[in-house]
Amino acid sequence: MHENLPFNRLLGLKVDYLRTDGAGFHFIMKDELIGNPVHGILHGGVISAVLDATGGMTVTASAVGRMQGLSPDEIVRQLSRIGTIDIRIDYLRPGKGTRFTSTGTIMRAGNKVAVSRMELRNQDDILIAVGTGAYMIG
Amino acid sequence: MHENLPFNRLLGLKVDYLRTDGAGFHFIMKDELIGNPVHGILHGGVISAVLDATGGMTVTASAVGRMQGLSPDEIVRQLSRIGTIDIRIDYLRPGKGTRFTSTGTIMRAGNKVAVSRMELRNQDDILIAVGTGAYMIG
Amino acid sequence: MHENLPFNRLLGLKVDYLRTDGAGFHFIMKDELIGNPVHGILHGGVISAVLDATGGMTVTASAVGRMQGLSPDEIVRQLSRIGTIDIRIDYLRPGKGTRFTSTGTIMRAGNKVAVSRMELRNQDDILIAVGTGAYMIG
Amino acid sequence: MHENLPFNRLLGLKVDYLRTDGAGFHFIMKDELIGNPVHGILHGGVISAVLDATGGMTVTASAVGRMQGLSPDEIVRQLSRIGTIDIRIDYLRPGKGTRFTSTGTIMRAGNKVAVSRMELRNQDDILIAVGTGAYMIG
Repeated sequence: MHENLPFNRLLGLKVDYLRTDGAGFHFIMKDELIGNPVHGILHGGVISAVLDATGGMTVTASAVGRMQGLSPDEIVRQLSRIGTIDIRIDYLRPGKGTRFTSTGTIMRAGNKVAVSRMELRNQDDILIAVGTGAYMIG
Repeated sequence: MHENLPFNRLLGLKVDYLRTDGAGFHFIMKDELIGNPVHGILHGGVISAVLDATGGMTVTASAVGRMQGLSPDEIVRQLSRIGTIDIRIDYLRPGKGTRFTSTGTIMRAGNKVAVSRMELRNQDDILIAVGTGAYMIG
Repeated sequence: MHENLPFNRLLGLKVDYLRTDGAGFHFIMKDELIGNPVHGILHGGVISAVLDATGGMTVTASAVGRMQGLSPDEIVRQLSRIGTIDIRIDYLRPGKGTRFTSTGTIMRAGNKVAVSRMELRNQDDILIAVGTGAYMIG
Repeated sequence: MHENLPFNRLLGLKVDYLRTDGAGFHFIMKDELIGNPVHGILHGGVISAVLDATGGMTVTASAVGRMQGLSPDEIVRQLSRIGTIDIRIDYLRPGKGTRFTSTGTIMRAGNKVAVSRMELRNQDDILIAVGTGAYMIG
């Protein structure tokens, strides 16, 4: 998450927690994220981008947790190789809300491939979308 | 595709063709779409947003083609109900390029559910990502 | 689940519980379900078939719970229309074990589309595979 | 494809062609593969098993094509490591027919991960299901 990238600044995702078994994030609704001006709901592309980023950071946090003893250079080198293989997003309910939280949990923490499941909820804990992503590691 | 939405203006997707069996679009690389500043490649969230929008417009064009005889009001009403159920994106190669084309083909054109397969290629016809989306109709 | 169908008899899935918010099943390992004779693990096709059936029965149980007041004929008519739109299966670990449980939870319980997430575990609670399915309702 | 495995014998998949860019198979309808006794259509679990096997053999054929110069032992060792990471199946139309063909094409042929898209058609070339699978290589 290079926070200085225009697209990431647009999403405005902030870290709530990063653990080896899961990670949590939140972001605030704003006009730039709207996909339907009549209903004022999140753009589908925002939802998929947030859940993909959430899964990627979840597997990254998990991978870092297993890098005890490596040099900082080696850690950076390995993390730079993490990439999304594929992702599935299920759009469950309209993205209505003022503040959204996304969470990722680790389903598989392998040496080559990691799998995360993700959830997006609004400030009333309404489940808006879920996703599953497979990520290449190291 | 409300072109006045900030997020859609960001993507800058332009229509090449709209047919009942498929649709094609293109967009031009720009700084705001970059996901990796070192390699200058597309942000993963941009790829998923473009392929989702491509699939949605592909099934919309297909649905319109089967609405012969309906009133404009009824057509608008039915189109407003089209929504993504779920989408899968496979990130095949780094999103390197100056101009990208996305195409959608119809796999299923039902009364309730439509399915589209999508492809994203760069100006050298290199396949960067593929996707499959299920969409609710009517 | 027509238990007299050869393919379903092969899987041997038994109901543990059926609720409006989720369902659970189990089946016993046997030679016919093996996909790798050296390691004695479940065939990938068995895993996907079990998780698809689990999701389908989960959304069916949920749909029945919302059919209060309908005639038996109408209930049967509506249930006969339930079908899988699409499914994603993530194969997390080798399907090693003697007894397997599959569970489904409801993510979306709509009038037209329902979404379930599924898990397959062995007798030691090791997570072997997860899935997500979208199903057409009514 | 160990043809002596009970589950594979059940499916009865036969090779039509194996190339580095794609593979084709067929199988004949029989009672054991039926999922709906009233309509006499393929079981959903059969469809997902066939498309998964088709994708796996497609990426295997592609991988073998890039193993020029390796010893037979090394080839067998590498092929034994190929495994499905995840798969998505879209059930487009009822599996009605007497003879079915499944084809796989290579979308990504990497050193670590390969991606295949698959199609299932009946003897009248009606598209019954499509799938996408990610597979671990070497």
